[in-house]
Amino acid sequence: MTTQQLIEQIHHKKSFLCIGLDVDLSKIPSHLLEKEDSIFEFNKAIIDATHHLCVSYKPNTAFYEACGIQGWQSLKKTIDYLNENYPEIFTIADAKRGDIGNTSTMYAKAFLEDLNFDSVTVAPYMGKDSVEPFLEFKYKHTIMLALTSNEGAFDFQTKIIEGKELYKTVIETSKTWKNSENLMYVVGATKAQYFAEIRQLIPDSFLLVPGIGAQGGNLQEVCKFGMNSNIGLLINSSRGIIYASNGLDFAEKANIEALKIQQEMEAILVSKFSF
Amino acid sequence: MTTQQLIEQIHHKKSFLCIGLDVDLSKIPSHLLEKEDSIFEFNKAIIDATHHLCVSYKPNTAFYEACGIQGWQSLKKTIDYLNENYPEIFTIADAKRGDIGNTSTMYAKAFLEDLNFDSVTVAPYMGKDSVEPFLEFKYKHTIMLALTSNEGAFDFQTKIIEGKELYKTVIETSKTWKNSENLMYVVGATKAQYFAEIRQLIPDSFLLVPGIGAQGGNLQEVCKFGMNSNIGLLINSSRGIIYASNGLDFAEKANIEALKIQQEMEAILVSKFSF
Repeated sequence: MTTQQLIEQIHHKKSFLCIGLDVDLSKIPSHLLEKEDSIFEFNKAIIDATHHLCVSYKPNTAFYEACGIQGWQSLKKTIDYLNENYPEIFTIADAKRGDIGNTSTMYAKAFLEDLNFDSVTVAPYMGKDSVEPFLEFKYKHTIMLALTSNEGAFDFQTKIIEGKELYKTVIETSKTWKNSENLMYVVGATKAQYFAEIRQLIPDSFLLVPGIGAQGGNLQEVCKFGMNSNIGLLINSSRGIIYASNGLDFAEKANIEALKIQQEMEAILVSKFSF
Repeated sequence: MTTQQLIEQIHHKKSFLCIGLDVDLSKIPSHLLEKEDSIFEFNKAIIDATHHLCVSYKPNTAFYEACGIQGWQSLKKTIDYLNENYPEIFTIADAKRGDIGNTSTMYAKAFLEDLNFDSVTVAPYMGKDSVEPFLEFKYKHTIMLALTSNEGAFDFQTKIIEGKELYKTVIETSKTWKNSENLMYVVGATKAQYFAEIRQLIPDSFLLVPGIGAQGGNLQEVCKFGMNSNIGLLINSSRGIIYASNGLDFAEKANIEALKIQQEMEAILVSKFSF
């Protein structure tokens, strides 16, 4: 998918919501546990109930790996279901991978080619040759960790390195890499005050923003400082939507929670761009 | 496995060799491609031919994920085969994972509990709460990236942060984390001169050292600066051993290459400790 197609989808749906499919078997409705592939059945119901309210889905690979081979089967069925039924959706493999060059190529093939996600998240610690293999894929996107939403972000990411915070050095350095136009960045919503500074470094890039809802981020604040003329934001919510209920009505309740966020997003878009 | 058991194995085998099982279907002998599980058959033959010469095997998950569900089945068969037949071997899932706390717990369970590896590699960028969930597992080890062996290591890891290189800050900070006694560190062999400084920070920790052989590192140099009284080193070699031949004699040639390194290691141990 091109960035332009993503932007058009945002305009069409009046939403820049990404729903995190972080499926934990201990949290899903018990009636689904009898199904042959509980995780996929859960995802399918959530997707069918919310696809018109969001522009992206983001399965976090940890939750699937924790279920072993069965989990990988569920992940594959989920991405295949999305690609077949909702090809307009921007899909994100939240895998946070990164290794030496030839090994990163293997990860890139796994997620962008074989599973056929539109994008994958990567970690920056190993530098240029650990990320560039992901950037080679045309019409695919690499979403690099910059400033994350967890407490540990302050351990290294905000430390000062050559006069500026490490996460800024990471962003600036990545702009010099080959095919860097295929980069997006993870920026946590719990630190909305940082968005203005980040926008000075990367005014045009899309930012994937976790931390709204369960992690305490504020949508209005993030949009005020982080939005650009192409919107430029994908706001993720996981638990607040997919675990809105653990009864028979889980998909219906997920729809209601997603609708609330979509409506808040629509109001922001109307006030800012007269959508 | 306890660290003491690993040390005893090193004494017994006169080896601190780790063999990287980075299995690429385009590089393995063609006669194996007819097998139902080519990757596992390749690994089994390599393991049977080299287990007495090394103390550890390290499958890199990227190579298995690149083969999808079949790849995960091969990974599971490989670790099960090791645990059943060679329980003395220290097994490493080279996965370089890391995420926010509850998600890292999922990764930790996947590798340390379900697959039952002795250890897993992790990336430090997301800080304390992304690594501590791995450290909770008793008799298991978490091997954190410190200074890697690739060119991109110089992008961020060696940058000066509060008066010292980032990788030193990473090491020092990690020592304050809960259950930090379960940490080991990845330190690339291409920069042997750094080992003396790293040993000042972590005199007792085990270091996993990639970069010998194909990546150009020198075993003698690494041992001179990196070895401690408990040896404290696991030296990894992948391609130089597992792809020594791509003919019918691949396992035999892998044995010969592993033996060369084991003998070099034995000579170092004899001269340094009168083994």
